[in-house]
Amino acid sequence: MSNTIGTAPADHVRTARGSGISTFMGLQNTRDLVGVDAAIFGIPFDSGGTPGTRWAPRLIRDASSLLRPAHAWHRLEIFSKINVVDYGDVSVQPPMVERSLDGIDATTSEIVAAGTLPIGIGGEHGVTLGELRAVGRDSPVSLIQFDAHTDTYDVYYDDVRYTAGTPFRRAVEEGVVAADRSIMIGLRGSVYTDRDFDDARDLGYEIITAEEVADIGPAAVAERIRARVGGSRTFLTFDIDCLDPAHAPATGTLELGGLTTREALAILRRLTGIDFVGFDLVEVNPAFDGARITAVAGATMIFEFLALVALMKTK
Amino acid sequence: MSNTIGTAPADHVRTARGSGISTFMGLQNTRDLVGVDAAIFGIPFDSGGTPGTRWAPRLIRDASSLLRPAHAWHRLEIFSKINVVDYGDVSVQPPMVERSLDGIDATTSEIVAAGTLPIGIGGEHGVTLGELRAVGRDSPVSLIQFDAHTDTYDVYYDDVRYTAGTPFRRAVEEGVVAADRSIMIGLRGSVYTDRDFDDARDLGYEIITAEEVADIGPAAVAERIRARVGGSRTFLTFDIDCLDPAHAPATGTLELGGLTTREALAILRRLTGIDFVGFDLVEVNPAFDGARITAVAGATMIFEFLALVALMKTK
Amino acid sequence: MSNTIGTAPADHVRTARGSGISTFMGLQNTRDLVGVDAAIFGIPFDSGGTPGTRWAPRLIRDASSLLRPAHAWHRLEIFSKINVVDYGDVSVQPPMVERSLDGIDATTSEIVAAGTLPIGIGGEHGVTLGELRAVGRDSPVSLIQFDAHTDTYDVYYDDVRYTAGTPFRRAVEEGVVAADRSIMIGLRGSVYTDRDFDDARDLGYEIITAEEVADIGPAAVAERIRARVGGSRTFLTFDIDCLDPAHAPATGTLELGGLTTREALAILRRLTGIDFVGFDLVEVNPAFDGARITAVAGATMIFEFLALVALMKTK
Amino acid sequence: MSNTIGTAPADHVRTARGSGISTFMGLQNTRDLVGVDAAIFGIPFDSGGTPGTRWAPRLIRDASSLLRPAHAWHRLEIFSKINVVDYGDVSVQPPMVERSLDGIDATTSEIVAAGTLPIGIGGEHGVTLGELRAVGRDSPVSLIQFDAHTDTYDVYYDDVRYTAGTPFRRAVEEGVVAADRSIMIGLRGSVYTDRDFDDARDLGYEIITAEEVADIGPAAVAERIRARVGGSRTFLTFDIDCLDPAHAPATGTLELGGLTTREALAILRRLTGIDFVGFDLVEVNPAFDGARITAVAGATMIFEFLALVALMKTK
Amino acid sequence: MSNTIGTAPADHVRTARGSGISTFMGLQNTRDLVGVDAAIFGIPFDSGGTPGTRWAPRLIRDASSLLRPAHAWHRLEIFSKINVVDYGDVSVQPPMVERSLDGIDATTSEIVAAGTLPIGIGGEHGVTLGELRAVGRDSPVSLIQFDAHTDTYDVYYDDVRYTAGTPFRRAVEEGVVAADRSIMIGLRGSVYTDRDFDDARDLGYEIITAEEVADIGPAAVAERIRARVGGSRTFLTFDIDCLDPAHAPATGTLELGGLTTREALAILRRLTGIDFVGFDLVEVNPAFDGARITAVAGATMIFEFLALVALMKTK
Amino acid sequence: MSNTIGTAPADHVRTARGSGISTFMGLQNTRDLVGVDAAIFGIPFDSGGTPGTRWAPRLIRDASSLLRPAHAWHRLEIFSKINVVDYGDVSVQPPMVERSLDGIDATTSEIVAAGTLPIGIGGEHGVTLGELRAVGRDSPVSLIQFDAHTDTYDVYYDDVRYTAGTPFRRAVEEGVVAADRSIMIGLRGSVYTDRDFDDARDLGYEIITAEEVADIGPAAVAERIRARVGGSRTFLTFDIDCLDPAHAPATGTLELGGLTTREALAILRRLTGIDFVGFDLVEVNPAFDGARITAVAGATMIFEFLALVALMKTK
Repeated sequence: MSNTIGTAPADHVRTARGSGISTFMGLQNTRDLVGVDAAIFGIPFDSGGTPGTRWAPRLIRDASSLLRPAHAWHRLEIFSKINVVDYGDVSVQPPMVERSLDGIDATTSEIVAAGTLPIGIGGEHGVTLGELRAVGRDSPVSLIQFDAHTDTYDVYYDDVRYTAGTPFRRAVEEGVVAADRSIMIGLRGSVYTDRDFDDARDLGYEIITAEEVADIGPAAVAERIRARVGGSRTFLTFDIDCLDPAHAPATGTLELGGLTTREALAILRRLTGIDFVGFDLVEVNPAFDGARITAVAGATMIFEFLALVALMKTK
Repeated sequence: MSNTIGTAPADHVRTARGSGISTFMGLQNTRDLVGVDAAIFGIPFDSGGTPGTRWAPRLIRDASSLLRPAHAWHRLEIFSKINVVDYGDVSVQPPMVERSLDGIDATTSEIVAAGTLPIGIGGEHGVTLGELRAVGRDSPVSLIQFDAHTDTYDVYYDDVRYTAGTPFRRAVEEGVVAADRSIMIGLRGSVYTDRDFDDARDLGYEIITAEEVADIGPAAVAERIRARVGGSRTFLTFDIDCLDPAHAPATGTLELGGLTTREALAILRRLTGIDFVGFDLVEVNPAFDGARITAVAGATMIFEFLALVALMKTK
Repeated sequence: MSNTIGTAPADHVRTARGSGISTFMGLQNTRDLVGVDAAIFGIPFDSGGTPGTRWAPRLIRDASSLLRPAHAWHRLEIFSKINVVDYGDVSVQPPMVERSLDGIDATTSEIVAAGTLPIGIGGEHGVTLGELRAVGRDSPVSLIQFDAHTDTYDVYYDDVRYTAGTPFRRAVEEGVVAADRSIMIGLRGSVYTDRDFDDARDLGYEIITAEEVADIGPAAVAERIRARVGGSRTFLTFDIDCLDPAHAPATGTLELGGLTTREALAILRRLTGIDFVGFDLVEVNPAFDGARITAVAGATMIFEFLALVALMKTK
Repeated sequence: MSNTIGTAPADHVRTARGSGISTFMGLQNTRDLVGVDAAIFGIPFDSGGTPGTRWAPRLIRDASSLLRPAHAWHRLEIFSKINVVDYGDVSVQPPMVERSLDGIDATTSEIVAAGTLPIGIGGEHGVTLGELRAVGRDSPVSLIQFDAHTDTYDVYYDDVRYTAGTPFRRAVEEGVVAADRSIMIGLRGSVYTDRDFDDARDLGYEIITAEEVADIGPAAVAERIRARVGGSRTFLTFDIDCLDPAHAPATGTLELGGLTTREALAILRRLTGIDFVGFDLVEVNPAFDGARITAVAGATMIFEFLALVALMKTK
Repeated sequence: MSNTIGTAPADHVRTARGSGISTFMGLQNTRDLVGVDAAIFGIPFDSGGTPGTRWAPRLIRDASSLLRPAHAWHRLEIFSKINVVDYGDVSVQPPMVERSLDGIDATTSEIVAAGTLPIGIGGEHGVTLGELRAVGRDSPVSLIQFDAHTDTYDVYYDDVRYTAGTPFRRAVEEGVVAADRSIMIGLRGSVYTDRDFDDARDLGYEIITAEEVADIGPAAVAERIRARVGGSRTFLTFDIDCLDPAHAPATGTLELGGLTTREALAILRRLTGIDFVGFDLVEVNPAFDGARITAVAGATMIFEFLALVALMKTK
Repeated sequence: MSNTIGTAPADHVRTARGSGISTFMGLQNTRDLVGVDAAIFGIPFDSGGTPGTRWAPRLIRDASSLLRPAHAWHRLEIFSKINVVDYGDVSVQPPMVERSLDGIDATTSEIVAAGTLPIGIGGEHGVTLGELRAVGRDSPVSLIQFDAHTDTYDVYYDDVRYTAGTPFRRAVEEGVVAADRSIMIGLRGSVYTDRDFDDARDLGYEIITAEEVADIGPAAVAERIRARVGGSRTFLTFDIDCLDPAHAPATGTLELGGLTTREALAILRRLTGIDFVGFDLVEVNPAFDGARITAVAGATMIFEFLALVALMKTK
């Protein structure tokens, strides 16, 4: 493990919560990635979909002050295993979607080029395409997608191709995702046609609906995910709307019958041994998060990602 | 299936969500019922109970813009099977309860007379009595009641007979509901006396408490409901407080330990093959619905009703 | 005055507030403009600026149920003087700004072509450019702009020309607004450079800052506006952020020290005798309008516009 | 001055704010009125008008914990001059309006019979009729009405006579108010017809509109009020909607252009020397009072009433 | 059972909900404990931890107006079995922690000395130490702790010993809790070190993590609790954050993956036959409780405590 | 003027608002003060008073993203005149008041020692004592205090000397403030005794009540302030509750009848020519700031301070 720079999170046994410039868990804000294992960065962009999600990186960073550095279930002191920094935000230009995707790609590529694992905080789900380009350009990645929706539509308004509803069709067309090693978890809800899920399957994706998650349980879900991606390079994207509205009320496209946070945590914690090359957390909409439970859910998912990184780096 | 008039919901692949006058799912607002299978109508009345629920029809119509036209679980394109319109609202006169019940009865009767299935959006639970009179006057209907409470009290304040707490006693007294073919699901909570549930049983109702739902599971609950109502003409009333406060925080009489939306959906989806003559959704209180999850829950339940209607009409 | 169609607003002496499909003041929703003096329409578009304002047309329509049909100060029964309808919404395609401006132009042009006065409800302020094209294409209009900001910037992100910050420079460049007959009221706040207001003046606009409004009072402000536009064809655009945050908290770019609603009403009521060809009300952001005071402010401004139309049509 | 019982408010120099059972300013909750100068009581009733205002007495009591016992402007230690208690609430039976008016009358009469001045906290404005019957039955009282609306309509829904919109017509008809010694302050807004204010004048009321308050200033308003009521027995009713929505967002019928709290305080403080026989504060709607500023406004107005009582009792 | 004094809760069949001075369930507010089985009292103190929880006793009392007097699951009319009063609040002096703990101890001791069972409403979790001193001074009690956290840290800021994070280490050190008969339920989340739970075990506590609750189910959890405390004198402390954020969003330290209210109720209801000497409910933070579901959860837990007391007193 | 380091605020013409780590106006976060004219720092401490204000520095930094770099009224490009940085936060240890005051003093002293002007963001008003010690230790400063309250009480709870209600008595006793050159603006409200204001005057302070501000107007107020402090070294403390609740709803001790933001801005802008040695902005309570208008008010006041600094440095 690399470790010479100061990347400890804020210590709330010594300073009060809420103190200090708001970075993720109080980690150092820097663009210097020497010796850094993972870099968290914000993608404050929402023009391709849910208006308001551009404010999520700030809210999730703020909510992350509730997190403590060790993981009880894994019995793991994350920050003694890996160096993590807060890389700041991608510069985006709303409502210019394609230009902003280039910016997301560029920032993610900088992180990847440093040998650091990128962890993005959206923003609407369209931003993931920019990250996937950065990690999958040379060789397509496997995708683990937690989501209520496939986001594999073709176009909106007859010819609009880059939106929050289309990234995972574009990613296959662009060759940055290998759908035959990829899987979607948590799909449900009202859909546009009776073939919505079949359209995703036709692209090559495997699907576990929310109803199936309830039927087979988290451990079996995790097993199917691990079997699907095997030892391949893998990107995990977590759309907060895979969670039930009771657990994540502040999102743009609420769908009843989603995963509980208990189920989501139980799945994520069993995804050890995968060769992760990136993560993101998207679709938190601060305007509806009165009690901040969605932001805390988002921050906690990132905490879970960090635990997986720590386990991966120290295996 | 009848189909000549324009009853498609708004198409959010072509126009942005939130566009257009707010009707349920963007359906046509009309009082012309020729060829219409189901008519959704609002009952903005709350004088018999929870103040504020009078604003629910508007909020639920607004929230319904999140719904898409096909049902993934049933694999069903609802609006290619049935014609549905938004009939507008009953004219009510708060705080005149009995006069308003007459208005609810009259509007429901208009819909029924056109051979159209009525789907009401309350208001407080007392409004259901008006609808039951319309569908059960000639012959008593069976009742499927999702609720935290029996609503079979006799009087409030010594002699007030028409309130949100009394409709299902009145309905039996008036001969519009056949309690011996009826069933209540989700009862729980603190009660007035240790005989509250027995009072409902004495009227003839069968009861499945929320604790029993948890114990036996949704499939078994659906089976008991189907066995209870058999092939009889049936009205389904869904009090949003049958759901747990985590899933439906915006209601007047919160009771812990309720159904999850996952359970409610799983039960509703299995109620196929029943001869439904009407539905309603009541007790959403907009003032407490910051993130709109209760309104979305209400709108989704109506979406589930529509799927049941589509399956019934096309069987 | 024309008057054969049914254009009375909802009568809340006879039906409860909040009853009925939500149109502006309960006016008829129709695209038939024969004999119609003014048509209110929504422009649910926010991609050029403040995310979330796309939901304002629905909220303002809902809030308008608090309004009654007569104007106490003018002693005027508006709807016995003019026919008004709710025309529904423009079809927009976020985040496609230029295409959506075309749609706004087209819908406004339809209304204008029918000899009906258009009253738009935005959306962010960029939408006004579409309306100005429709009313000013043949001959440039005078502009009365209530606003905290000039919205005459040139570009954002080096080359983005159509945003909420640029419409009133574009309108001059396109020849649809005659700046030398136009005036801005309420400017204030922090600005990009010390020449922001001078830039607007250089385009030809007259400016009354918020501080000047406080100094000279509403009657003098109204007099300067009337002197400026004279007898020319005039469009009035009301950005809700011209009001102080205390009076309009739910907007995207809060600026302290704005007009009180008392001042705004006192100015608007004195703008009689002007040849208005259109109005709009923009930049209400529903997500921050907990107590709905901003939406009610917006709805009331439209009510004031209607009074001006009624006085103009009956002069 | 009488003073043997313990009627000191909570002392927040010695115990923390928010401590203790929630009574108005922490005053003793008792029905024993021996030696008591003024009794505050709640009227949690809203069936005749604004749903939700039934919760206001509790919220206003809670908000009153911000108040301190002395009045800076009057330089007056109120509770060393007068004994005040919290009498609890009237027992009401929603939605039974007439029966509840009887209860309000009865409770108010108990307080009056003890020689104690009643200070009611509504509830919607219809409750004032019950109080006026208690104080005006033997001899009609003068009325000082702070309000955005006349509340002198005749009927709603053709024949409903007791609502939040009708009490001050009923009070004249019943002979409990002498309109020719009475005055309304703050009227404004959209109205039902162009004769709404004239209808109130025809009943005998004098009117000062909100626009006139702005024009002549608080001192002149107070002078006109004092001239109007002279030395007669006077009841002051304060509908919180006389204030501007910026100052009182949480009420049922928001009207722009209302009084500022600065103006309202300046008027109230100058109403010394009047023979008050009762007060009330109505139409606070807690559901919309996120930051509690309306409740604090309501509590402060009651504090101002108490100062007037103290000055009256010690003159 | 003792029963001569008037300790019935408010009867909402006869008076409207929300009527009357706000005490717990409308119980009599008195410091006279003769014949009283249980006394509910508030501890409005938050200086040792979560700012804002000082307002919880008022909110929970208000929310308790939704509760009815009988318990459906136990089939038990609680208030015909036991006498309960609302004792008011402890006098606290923020930010003086140690002095306030003395006050909490003193008030609790008064109640205990009267032979009455104390039921406290916090406040942050540090207040429990004051209560434990009162019940455990003569002989250490067993502790049943529902919580997301151990609250057994040693010091904050190097030497601050009395905080919301430390009471259950202090209680063992002071000899007022017997850790070897005590048990914590619901622990989870991010922690300070990988030994956080071991530190609590080293003090002698048994632990059932939230994940274990999900695995073994409520009945087995209840069985382990009963086995642990046996026939010993037992205090039950319920930190609302043991519940999942979906069920209790308004608390200071949200942790995903917590107990559902269904699970918590199912456990509590099975804790019959234990010799309880006190209860408390802590860490509700009103500022984040928009829809009041956390306050209702808190009030309901107290209702469940009362049922256990009634069963214990009548066994 | 010094200017070599990069201290430009974020440029929202080039990057979207809300992008980037949240510092005040996007200024550089650094502890390097070489060449820095003013340093903004947070004081997230609330144990001496209003719980929740500890979160204000983060919220105000976030809200400051609405500000632009130039000042329209002064016609001043602030950041081309002075170098400003965001210094981060003081490390505080709640609830340890005296220890935290030492920390505030130490951090402020660091800034002062670098020849940089300190601008603090509280926190409750008690924090100002720490800052005053840093700037007034060697020689007492003059104080300009915008506030609803004197905050010159002696003790709470008999002997607690350091609270939000006492700093300006302590400051005189400690010799860090020269009361005879100091002035309080905006006092009003209910008070503890009829001598509250006299107590402050007895200490030497001059007072302008809120009622006097309304009477004499902002220009005269500014003149009195300037006359009072003359050419002496001056600290300006701005308690957000000097503003009316309509303009600053999110604060701990709401008092009606406060200053409008228009008045406050008009006063501040006229305080040129004073020898300022420090500023702070205190008592914003984020939990009640739904629409963020209070945070924006707070951020704007700091913007006004910066303009005064720029004018002072360039005079």
